[in-house]
Amino acid sequence: MSHKKMLETYPKDLGGIDVDKLADCIAACFECAQVCTACADACLSEDMVTDLTKCIRTNLDCADQCATTGRALSRHTGYDANLTRAFLEACAAACKACADECEQHAEMHEHCKVCAEACRRCEQACRDLLTSLG
Amino acid sequence: MSHKKMLETYPKDLGGIDVDKLADCIAACFECAQVCTACADACLSEDMVTDLTKCIRTNLDCADQCATTGRALSRHTGYDANLTRAFLEACAAACKACADECEQHAEMHEHCKVCAEACRRCEQACRDLLTSLG
Amino acid sequence: MSHKKMLETYPKDLGGIDVDKLADCIAACFECAQVCTACADACLSEDMVTDLTKCIRTNLDCADQCATTGRALSRHTGYDANLTRAFLEACAAACKACADECEQHAEMHEHCKVCAEACRRCEQACRDLLTSLG
Amino acid sequence: MSHKKMLETYPKDLGGIDVDKLADCIAACFECAQVCTACADACLSEDMVTDLTKCIRTNLDCADQCATTGRALSRHTGYDANLTRAFLEACAAACKACADECEQHAEMHEHCKVCAEACRRCEQACRDLLTSLG
Repeated sequence: MSHKKMLETYPKDLGGIDVDKLADCIAACFECAQVCTACADACLSEDMVTDLTKCIRTNLDCADQCATTGRALSRHTGYDANLTRAFLEACAAACKACADECEQHAEMHEHCKVCAEACRRCEQACRDLLTSLG
Repeated sequence: MSHKKMLETYPKDLGGIDVDKLADCIAACFECAQVCTACADACLSEDMVTDLTKCIRTNLDCADQCATTGRALSRHTGYDANLTRAFLEACAAACKACADECEQHAEMHEHCKVCAEACRRCEQACRDLLTSLG
Repeated sequence: MSHKKMLETYPKDLGGIDVDKLADCIAACFECAQVCTACADACLSEDMVTDLTKCIRTNLDCADQCATTGRALSRHTGYDANLTRAFLEACAAACKACADECEQHAEMHEHCKVCAEACRRCEQACRDLLTSLG
Repeated sequence: MSHKKMLETYPKDLGGIDVDKLADCIAACFECAQVCTACADACLSEDMVTDLTKCIRTNLDCADQCATTGRALSRHTGYDANLTRAFLEACAAACKACADECEQHAEMHEHCKVCAEACRRCEQACRDLLTSLG
C-alpha cells in the first residue's frame, strides 16, 4: 500500500502521532471518498431515486470531507494537532451522517450497504486517531 | 453574483437558514479556497521558501477545507444543521490557523497579507453563520 | 477581486501568459464550480428529479474539473504550458457537456439556465486562454 | 477492494466499458492522488526544498487531476465517452509531467521514487482505458 510507503519516506519526524492509526485513517478516508462518490451515482441511477435524494446529498458531503481529511492527514509539515482534531471531528460527523442514512437503504440497495460499511470504518478510524491524539 | 441567483432558484424551502449569512459564507469559502491555493504557490516561489513551509502546508489544508465547506453549503437537499455545524467549525479552525500563520509573514509578503485577510473574512463568515444556526 | 490581487503579488515572472485572460479564467472556473454544485443539488430537489439524473451527473463532473482547473491556473511555479493546455481542454469539454445538458432544461428550471450561462462563460474563458497560449 | 464491489452493485448497465480496466484506473487515480499529496508535503520538508519547488507544484496539479478523474470514473449515470476521454487525457498528461519531474529526484528522495512509480501506473491505466474506449 503506497500510503504506508509514503509515511516511511517522510524526511522529518512525524510528531509522535500513532503511525499505524494514521495509516489506517488515511486509507479509510480515501476509500470512503471513492465509495461515497460511487454510491451517490448508483442512487442516481435507481428507479426510486426520489426516495434517495437525501442519501445522495449526504454521500456528496461525505465524499468531499473524506477527501479533504485524507489529504490533510497526508501532510506532516508544520504539524498542528488542533487542526488535525478539527478535520477528524468533521470527518467522523460526515461519515456518521452518511452511514446512518445509507443503513436505512442497505437492505434494498447493495451499494448503500457497501457504502454504510465504508463510512462506519472511516468514522471509527477517525475516532481511533482522535483518541490516540489525546 | 451567481451563488445568490442559485440560492433564489432552489426549488424547495431552504430550511429557515439565514440566507444572507449563507450567501456571504459560500462566497467567502470559494474566495478563500482560491486565495490559499495561490498563496501556497506564491510562497513556493519566494527565495526564502525554507521559512514558509509551515505557511504552505496550512494554506493547502485551508484551501481544501474551504472548498469542501463551500460545496456543502451550496447543497440544501436533506438539510442537517448538525452536519453544517461540523463543516463550519472545521472551516473556522482551518481559516484561523492559516490567518495566524500568514499574518506572521504579512509585512514581508503581500500575498500573505491578502491571504490572511481572506482567511479572517472566511473565519468570521463561518462563525456568523454558526451563531445564526443557534 | 482577490484572485487579481494574488496575481499581482506573485513574486516571480508569470511566464508571459496573458494575465487578464488568466484572471478571467480563474474567476470563471471557481464560479462554475460553485454553480454546478448548486445546480446538481437544485435538480436533486426537483419533483421531476428522474428527468434530471444525467444533468446532475454532468454537473458533478463539471464542478470537479472546474475546481481542479481553477486551482492549477492559480499556480505559476514551474509553469508548463503543455499541462495548462491539457487542463483547459478537459475543462472546456466538461463545461460544454454541462451547458449542452443544462440548456435542455433551462426553460423549465431557472437554476439550469443560470448554470448553462456559467458553463458557457467558463468554456469560453478556457478557449480564450487556450488561444492566447498559442 | 470496495471500488470493485461498487462497480458490481451499480444498478444499470455500465455502457459497454471494459470493467477491469475501469476498476484498475479508478484505483490508480485515487492512489496517485494520495501519493502526490504526500510527496508534495515530503518535498516541502526536505532541507533542499528550494530544488523541489517545481516538483511540489507538479505534485499538487497531479493530485487534483487524479482526484477529479477518479471521481468522474466512479460515475456511470448518463455516460458520455467523449467526456471520459477528455478527463483521461488530462490525467495522463498530469501523471506524465509529475512522473518526469519526480524521476529526476528519485535517486535522492525515496518519496519521489514511490511517487514516480504511482504516476507511471496511473498514466498507463489512463492510456489503457483510453485505448479500450476506441
